Amino acid sequence: MYGPINPKAPFIWHGGDYNPEQWPPEVWVEDVRLMQEAHYNVPTVGVFSWVSLQPDEHTWDFEWLDRVLEMLHASGRYFVLATPTAAQPAWMSQRYPDVLRADNTGRRHHHGRRVNYCPNSPNYRRFIREVASRLAQRYGGHPGLLAWHVSNEYGGTCMCEVCAEAFRAWLRRRYGSLEEVNRSWWTRFWGHTYTDWSQITPPYANGENLTHGLTIDYKRFQSEAMLECFKIERDAIREHSPDVPVTTNLMGTYPLLDYREWAKEMDVVSWDCYPWPTADPGDIAFLHDLNRGLKDGRPFILMEQTPSSQNWQPVNQLKRPGVLRLWSYLAVAHGAETVMYFQWRRGRGGCEKFHGAVVEHHGRTDARVFREVSELGAELERLGDATIGAATPARVAVMFDWNNWWAIDDAVGPVREKRYVETVRQHYRAIWRKNVPVDVVFSDSDLSRYDLVIAPMLYMVKPGVAERIEGFVRGGGVFVATQFSGVADEHDLAFEGYPGPLRRVLGIWVEEIDALYEGQVNHIVMADGTGTYECGRMCDIVRTETARVVATYGEDFYAGTPVVTENRFGEGRAYYIASHPEDRFLDEFYGLLLLEQGVQPVMETPAGVEAALREKDGARLVFLLNHNPEEVTVRLPEGEAFLELLSGEELRGEIVMAAYDVRILRADA
Amino acid sequence: MYGPINPKAPFIWHGGDYNPEQWPPEVWVEDVRLMQEAHYNVPTVGVFSWVSLQPDEHTWDFEWLDRVLEMLHASGRYFVLATPTAAQPAWMSQRYPDVLRADNTGRRHHHGRRVNYCPNSPNYRRFIREVASRLAQRYGGHPGLLAWHVSNEYGGTCMCEVCAEAFRAWLRRRYGSLEEVNRSWWTRFWGHTYTDWSQITPPYANGENLTHGLTIDYKRFQSEAMLECFKIERDAIREHSPDVPVTTNLMGTYPLLDYREWAKEMDVVSWDCYPWPTADPGDIAFLHDLNRGLKDGRPFILMEQTPSSQNWQPVNQLKRPGVLRLWSYLAVAHGAETVMYFQWRRGRGGCEKFHGAVVEHHGRTDARVFREVSELGAELERLGDATIGAATPARVAVMFDWNNWWAIDDAVGPVREKRYVETVRQHYRAIWRKNVPVDVVFSDSDLSRYDLVIAPMLYMVKPGVAERIEGFVRGGGVFVATQFSGVADEHDLAFEGYPGPLRRVLGIWVEEIDALYEGQVNHIVMADGTGTYECGRMCDIVRTETARVVATYGEDFYAGTPVVTENRFGEGRAYYIASHPEDRFLDEFYGLLLLEQGVQPVMETPAGVEAALREKDGARLVFLLNHNPEEVTVRLPEGEAFLELLSGEELRGEIVMAAYDVRILRADA
Amino acid sequence: MYGPINPKAPFIWHGGDYNPEQWPPEVWVEDVRLMQEAHYNVPTVGVFSWVSLQPDEHTWDFEWLDRVLEMLHASGRYFVLATPTAAQPAWMSQRYPDVLRADNTGRRHHHGRRVNYCPNSPNYRRFIREVASRLAQRYGGHPGLLAWHVSNEYGGTCMCEVCAEAFRAWLRRRYGSLEEVNRSWWTRFWGHTYTDWSQITPPYANGENLTHGLTIDYKRFQSEAMLECFKIERDAIREHSPDVPVTTNLMGTYPLLDYREWAKEMDVVSWDCYPWPTADPGDIAFLHDLNRGLKDGRPFILMEQTPSSQNWQPVNQLKRPGVLRLWSYLAVAHGAETVMYFQWRRGRGGCEKFHGAVVEHHGRTDARVFREVSELGAELERLGDATIGAATPARVAVMFDWNNWWAIDDAVGPVREKRYVETVRQHYRAIWRKNVPVDVVFSDSDLSRYDLVIAPMLYMVKPGVAERIEGFVRGGGVFVATQFSGVADEHDLAFEGYPGPLRRVLGIWVEEIDALYEGQVNHIVMADGTGTYECGRMCDIVRTETARVVATYGEDFYAGTPVVTENRFGEGRAYYIASHPEDRFLDEFYGLLLLEQGVQPVMETPAGVEAALREKDGARLVFLLNHNPEEVTVRLPEGEAFLELLSGEELRGEIVMAAYDVRILRADA
Repeated sequence: MYGPINPKAPFIWHGGDYNPEQWPPEVWVEDVRLMQEAHYNVPTVGVFSWVSLQPDEHTWDFEWLDRVLEMLHASGRYFVLATPTAAQPAWMSQRYPDVLRADNTGRRHHHGRRVNYCPNSPNYRRFIREVASRLAQRYGGHPGLLAWHVSNEYGGTCMCEVCAEAFRAWLRRRYGSLEEVNRSWWTRFWGHTYTDWSQITPPYANGENLTHGLTIDYKRFQSEAMLECFKIERDAIREHSPDVPVTTNLMGTYPLLDYREWAKEMDVVSWDCYPWPTADPGDIAFLHDLNRGLKDGRPFILMEQTPSSQNWQPVNQLKRPGVLRLWSYLAVAHGAETVMYFQWRRGRGGCEKFHGAVVEHHGRTDARVFREVSELGAELERLGDATIGAATPARVAVMFDWNNWWAIDDAVGPVREKRYVETVRQHYRAIWRKNVPVDVVFSDSDLSRYDLVIAPMLYMVKPGVAERIEGFVRGGGVFVATQFSGVADEHDLAFEGYPGPLRRVLGIWVEEIDALYEGQVNHIVMADGTGTYECGRMCDIVRTETARVVATYGEDFYAGTPVVTENRFGEGRAYYIASHPEDRFLDEFYGLLLLEQGVQPVMETPAGVEAALREKDGARLVFLLNHNPEEVTVRLPEGEAFLELLSGEELRGEIVMAAYDVRILRADA
Repeated sequence: MYGPINPKAPFIWHGGDYNPEQWPPEVWVEDVRLMQEAHYNVPTVGVFSWVSLQPDEHTWDFEWLDRVLEMLHASGRYFVLATPTAAQPAWMSQRYPDVLRADNTGRRHHHGRRVNYCPNSPNYRRFIREVASRLAQRYGGHPGLLAWHVSNEYGGTCMCEVCAEAFRAWLRRRYGSLEEVNRSWWTRFWGHTYTDWSQITPPYANGENLTHGLTIDYKRFQSEAMLECFKIERDAIREHSPDVPVTTNLMGTYPLLDYREWAKEMDVVSWDCYPWPTADPGDIAFLHDLNRGLKDGRPFILMEQTPSSQNWQPVNQLKRPGVLRLWSYLAVAHGAETVMYFQWRRGRGGCEKFHGAVVEHHGRTDARVFREVSELGAELERLGDATIGAATPARVAVMFDWNNWWAIDDAVGPVREKRYVETVRQHYRAIWRKNVPVDVVFSDSDLSRYDLVIAPMLYMVKPGVAERIEGFVRGGGVFVATQFSGVADEHDLAFEGYPGPLRRVLGIWVEEIDALYEGQVNHIVMADGTGTYECGRMCDIVRTETARVVATYGEDFYAGTPVVTENRFGEGRAYYIASHPEDRFLDEFYGLLLLEQGVQPVMETPAGVEAALREKDGARLVFLLNHNPEEVTVRLPEGEAFLELLSGEELRGEIVMAAYDVRILRADA
Repeated sequence: MYGPINPKAPFIWHGGDYNPEQWPPEVWVEDVRLMQEAHYNVPTVGVFSWVSLQPDEHTWDFEWLDRVLEMLHASGRYFVLATPTAAQPAWMSQRYPDVLRADNTGRRHHHGRRVNYCPNSPNYRRFIREVASRLAQRYGGHPGLLAWHVSNEYGGTCMCEVCAEAFRAWLRRRYGSLEEVNRSWWTRFWGHTYTDWSQITPPYANGENLTHGLTIDYKRFQSEAMLECFKIERDAIREHSPDVPVTTNLMGTYPLLDYREWAKEMDVVSWDCYPWPTADPGDIAFLHDLNRGLKDGRPFILMEQTPSSQNWQPVNQLKRPGVLRLWSYLAVAHGAETVMYFQWRRGRGGCEKFHGAVVEHHGRTDARVFREVSELGAELERLGDATIGAATPARVAVMFDWNNWWAIDDAVGPVREKRYVETVRQHYRAIWRKNVPVDVVFSDSDLSRYDLVIAPMLYMVKPGVAERIEGFVRGGGVFVATQFSGVADEHDLAFEGYPGPLRRVLGIWVEEIDALYEGQVNHIVMADGTGTYECGRMCDIVRTETARVVATYGEDFYAGTPVVTENRFGEGRAYYIASHPEDRFLDEFYGLLLLEQGVQPVMETPAGVEAALREKDGARLVFLLNHNPEEVTVRLPEGEAFLELLSGEELRGEIVMAAYDVRILRADA
């Protein structure tokens, strides 16, 4: 159980991006009228409005924003207030060119687009501090204000000279001596030893980009530098608005920022959810669970989603009727406290003018999308605080780690496409398909609360991680590792033998790694004769030490050698899956493990119907989500009755769910 | 009926690019002898000869050209004279680096290749004025001179600082105030408001390239800047050579130049026709009709085609025997007054040494290509002025517009690949396949002379266009619009509701736009039960106002909603086709419309045999073109007799046409 | 018969890259112990060790290398000593930026990666001379030293200003006058005539890159400039170490360096063999034969191969058990005097940490790879000098030429993908499949020793080559040319008629060249009715003069015209194959030619079993190589007995070869 994000508004926020500065005031009046109709009760204001607030270095204009916020509030709305710092004004780039980012050859960008600032630029940092401070001073106490939305979708990389210099300072702090840098980066390779700090550069595309200690440290440094920008704004805000939570909108498994580190600095996690129309709902669920995991289970803000379509994909298909509602509840089922959109009203110009919006260019309210949004808004309003602050009682965890991802992607060999994220998702989905709640955890997470921890492709094992895993297993947990694990330390230096520090808990060592061509397969042959499954891509050739062989390879010169092993360790067990398996293997493998660990599904459902669980005030909230494009019948547990929260009806026995329909069943303990 | 391009030469010019400056004078003598044999009576001289004419800034050498032109003329030949300005000499780039173009990051090119000049460079403009002036002064009154060919295949883009500054000046003239720029470009989006003119830059690849008002204006500006270069030369020429028509060779649907605006400045349109060997002849016909349309129906110069093969395609297949003749008459059938080639003689070096030529490296006249060219030359000579100045009496028009293309390609969403040109060509071919003459028209064309006007994907509706279309329909015309029309104004600002200003004439509005994946289809189900057709890619979801539903979607959540509509408006009708249809639909749809409008085919022919029409002196000239690689029998209209102009025979009843054969039938009114 | 590479070590060297500088001294002790076990008797030391030897401009440290070499030698090992110049230290790039390479736009790289030096940089040249000289001075007389390995895998291109200036000087020397440059480069095309030397630039990607005389000359210049670097080091070494052979490791058909010219400066050829795991063994054999051919038949050093897998391919599959041994003997069968590896021990960091190594990260000797290497080492040791210095008695030659390759790749048309190397390999493999020894020869090679010379796609015919071919045929040789031959001279200027100077010996001329689309085919129809074969890609349309028609095209407008011709010329014959044929044609065509020329296979073997031949001391050494992944039975020639060198057994009749197995049969004459 958690408190609401802001005690002023203990309900599901329904709203999102609103850019009144793009429109004349007469449209604002219409906006408020339509928001009323759409139950759009928490608009996000201010994103990208910098030049409207600060038309030149020494001029400020808050009047328009005063009026907008007043109108919103007067009409009964709350709002999220954004700082505008995701795109600096043209005058700033012009007068202070160091605010502009440089590309991966060190060449400065021209002004334009967005997120085009150097995160280490002293001028940029000075300006963001000032604008954040002024906004907080002026609006920090506004009764309508629910949260601060700092900047927007941080990302990218800068390789300018300011960054280069800051990087060298960062390295001095991190390593203390140049000798330690050389040692950690294995620079004797190709004679790359640095003999002076000044020789170190960013990993330019046309320079040094194959020293992996350098490349991963530069990613860490840039992630931290951008986080520093966030912190500058956050701290400026807190000074004047200490009681309002501060966040920034994340982007799922965005590759370049270590969100786990970011979350530690955020009061509440928020994120923008843009799955492809053809996405597996399990992959969307994974992202929600990941965001919930960033703060160890705390519910989060769904800051953006499209009401209808995206615009930047090759093909931007409309969400079919009902899918917006379904995916909104999917978010809530996995921890969202809000249902918010990009965007309220489509701009007439700009490169997002074909991005879905609540109010489309025609501006009509008798349109499908506006109606769906409005009906959802009304329904959410009726739901009140029923789901607010609910927890997710997961006993299974899947581990994800940005540093690990970076190192895997840098690794040259054994195959070019390592597919770390896809692999994590594959394991996640195998559990998710069983209607078993999963937490996404990180390499620094506390594992003690779980029965099963899965760490797919844990290539990089940072200090303390193996110890934590050993402790978890010793205490009775079941741990699953896969191919290409325990390969390198936090500097991406290979261990002298894989799986490195995981060797003891897994009871194996890896002699070689074979790589299979696309379309080429080997097989997992269960030692007990229960089945044979395809595997491929990478095949670790494994030798057991204390482990026993659960399955062997079916083909090739390593036929008959271990492909799945089990090691009893303390009170628990640790498994190694040495090759990339087909889904069917994971279904059966995890089915057995969950049975043995006594982990039950939330509910048994037909294919394509998800049952997700949250708990609040001792009651179980079961979200039934029909991901199928057709009607389905679900049989509720024998003899149990549930209060369905959306309809207020009591349900039992067989229920019929329409295509994409949702039920929220409450069962009190 | 039009006058000949040059009254001195009222016959089909047969000739083309000739580069004597690449060869020693003894070869010139051989050239003239071979031209005689090949009936190559109008060579084009001077293209790319700048350094030969002006070996340094203050030295001029016209002697070689005097001799060449004299030899040509003395042997009974005319010539087209080119200015050499498509590639500046190395000394010029070296001494005046501002003549060099900059790439899309603002970085200056090195000297080399061709069309590598900055169109706004004051030095470049000074030099082209001088060379054009000197040439005109010296040769403007030459009795052999038929036309001026200014520069060569203008194109590309420059983003240097000179261009940037000129662009800002251009914007000041166009918009008057910075406020108007900001308003027209919707710069409040992402806070991109300019607060000083100097902040505006070209749409650099590493800068501001997502403000679509900027990107389309920069294209307009560059097209105009290059046109300005043309005009500088044209005016310099006219001063000394006022009676000789001036042209430059266009390149079909070349994306970067608005040829409609260019044609207004050209005395006669000329173009270079390089279809792929596997091209649909309907697509070639479209390009000829487009070039004829550039000057509202005036015949044009076919300036270049290959006698055998190109060299820059991935696979450069030879034109099969007969195809050169067939495609030459295809050009004439659609308005060409010339049959000209690139190139007379293959150079021994240079990157075009494997491009087809009349005289190949072996220099022999007993070779297939030389023989085909010579025989065609003789045949054209016999044809005399029979086709010269003939008009094309089209009652159907297909609209094409460069600004529209640019805006469509810039649009982010609903699908990435919009395929504007392909869509225009698809509609064109549907009419062409019926042997019905088509004019290609532009958004500023007079529509009153047509019975049917088709405007595929008219995304951008510029001021006055909707009014012109309304007038046309009100007066009894039939208008056809398609998916993704009426979306944006001339600044690429979305209308507040599509199809914007076309809403009244079409009697519908578009609620949403769905996008289909490659391979995914919906269906057009005719309301009267006459058929069902595939459609896809984009599906506008349409609501009718005054229109009636002609066909509905067959599937998906918008099944049963309109996909084809008809709106009676004044004396005419306006149709909307809301999704991309298969060809079969267009065949039947247009078949019916043409029938209703009383538009007859030129002649009924078997598949693959085209019947095209020109009219001269009250006579009809029917071009029968057998595009099939095999013999075909064509039945001429019952009871009619025709004079076949190539053979001089009278034809009636059934005629047999060999593979790729051509007949030109004259029927006097 | 040749002498051993170094008389000190007349046996097959087994060893390769060893980088002790990456490890602490305690690991060196372990290394020596393991080398002993692995029979790793010739490690290569010093590659990339520059910063370890010269930590700053004025500091030298040889002590560690003294120790390493002493340890190796003391344990009974020899060594190859490398100069470290393939990657300059960071301090050098920092202090002397001109040592850095510039990219193909003239922009200087940042420091990093490897082979990032400008080959014309005076500072780079000064530094490499010094380090090579110091090494030679110190170790030139070391009793363990077998060979000098200069730098590493030269390659790439630099387009900096220093190179540009050096290029202009190179051109002055080559052409004498600017007029001659203009003439040779056909610069009148597009008006590219240079009027001052200073106007000539490297062929920048954003400048002049379509003047093919320039592009090929720049490749020649860069190849020579890099060769000059090699020579600087070689000469510095020879001064102090005159008796030790000097080499550098080549890379097969590396495109950018003319290895034929390089080989002339090297004492012995060495190369790095990295085939893809799925490579056709015939293609590997081709590369070995090419390296042997570089010095007209002299055996060579196999400097690098992977013991298990590469790491930089998309999929880096392990060599299956036995393949390392098989491919090692494949090398020896084709002229290798060594079996050497990259790398001894995997580094813990660096971008090659997943490249196969003898000692893997786990460091164990009970691993498959270590065992295979050790067993192979022991076996090679037993083989002693049995193969050392043996010659390859080839009567068939296939011609390869780097200048020709460059010109073909530059050619724009008739098809983009010319596939020169693939075509050479296709012809080579047709002979190789018959167990007939082949020499790879070059355009300057002596042809008189052969019965059959095949010159696939000899597009560029340099001065003297046609004369040499004529002499060869006149004297009774059989010469085979193919499509796209005799097209251009050494400046890439087209001959006035193809096949240019080969016209007389071939007795044909080429009228046109047709190009076929991927998947489109024509047919080779044998005039004597013996068969029909597919052909395609390019189809020369041929006219015979003195030649007779062997086969005609089956389809298209040139059906019935010659596709294969034979010309009797002096005592010999010359064939022209005018289109790219399928393998089956070459098998039968060459089968007949070899029969007629009396060229016998080394031995008849089942499919996939290669029989290769070397000769030593009058004895024939027949290498039987089973490339099949399964067991095969080979029948030895009736009545003959062989001494099998690996087992010491006498063999006759049927022998069974395991998958990937090898036999070396000695038959004394």
